[in-house]
Amino acid sequence: MYELIFANFAMHITLSMEEIEEIKLKLEYKIVKKNELLLKSGEVCRNFYFVNQGCLRIFNTDEKGEEHNLLFLPENWWAVDMTSFSEQKPAFYTISSLEKTELFYLNYNVLEELYQTVPKLERFFRIMIQNGFSLYQQRIISNLSMPAEERYQLFQNQYPKLEQRIAQKHIASYLGITPVFLSMMRKKYQRAR
Amino acid sequence: MYELIFANFAMHITLSMEEIEEIKLKLEYKIVKKNELLLKSGEVCRNFYFVNQGCLRIFNTDEKGEEHNLLFLPENWWAVDMTSFSEQKPAFYTISSLEKTELFYLNYNVLEELYQTVPKLERFFRIMIQNGFSLYQQRIISNLSMPAEERYQLFQNQYPKLEQRIAQKHIASYLGITPVFLSMMRKKYQRAR
Repeated sequence: MYELIFANFAMHITLSMEEIEEIKLKLEYKIVKKNELLLKSGEVCRNFYFVNQGCLRIFNTDEKGEEHNLLFLPENWWAVDMTSFSEQKPAFYTISSLEKTELFYLNYNVLEELYQTVPKLERFFRIMIQNGFSLYQQRIISNLSMPAEERYQLFQNQYPKLEQRIAQKHIASYLGITPVFLSMMRKKYQRAR
Repeated sequence: MYELIFANFAMHITLSMEEIEEIKLKLEYKIVKKNELLLKSGEVCRNFYFVNQGCLRIFNTDEKGEEHNLLFLPENWWAVDMTSFSEQKPAFYTISSLEKTELFYLNYNVLEELYQTVPKLERFFRIMIQNGFSLYQQRIISNLSMPAEERYQLFQNQYPKLEQRIAQKHIASYLGITPVFLSMMRKKYQRAR
């Protein structure tokens, strides 16, 4: 059951058998149903989640009650509200499941302890957080400066095969367009293939 | 001359004398004049800068040629286009000096080497990047969801005493308002004191 997450660690660090056992002892595991809340805006984000199977989304809700999807997090992605987690203060974002989802997670205090016992994790999360920062920056900038069709192509490259798994309204919300406009773009691209 | 930067390191890690010497050997130093470019949008961000004296700003220029200040970086701040630096690809942002500025900096390759010889730096930059991520997220969210007056108060808390050092137009651009509106807000707050 630990294959995917330790392959993920192995992308950036080489862990000894002892270190792997130490991490396994600390990792928590759960399965959530579709549409379950893992973090609610206004609450403190206590866990750093790894998606072993299924898919999460991170979104915010504006004052009109409209949801804006920031990220989708299928298998092999780490999910967190970084500001809330690192400062242990109320979250801006909400995290919920788009499918039945299998998760590993590390609690804030447990991860702080693990940084002491397995210092290599500093490097792993340094790189993870750096990549997360880049991704966040790209999302913000592409929403500011890219036409919807380019954003749609970027989405398809970023998340191969995810389009079939999640509702059209969620993809439209990720792209910052209406479902009707998304449907028009899709038809256009299907004709173009 | 190294007091400020090593006090900055000491906020998150405890370095040995040998480690301090190792870092000193790798740190580069320069002084730039006012309004000098350190990174131009479209170029690769090769250096991670530490402001020892003076002030930098990070901004982007929109298609109309208008500049939008993302951050000011006075003494004790680290400056980088994170996405460009970590992936060594063209930068979205531009970095320039608002005053004559004294800088230490680490080149990308040098920092990668330093992570090997001084692994504690993994922890330091993990925390730095995490804080930078939080700050970036706060900037984006406050621009989306906070009234201008609250953003102005946040600016004053974030940067005590900076307001007197930099041009009104730069503060207005940071707040996403016109200089005229900033001037009105300032008068209102001066009366209120």
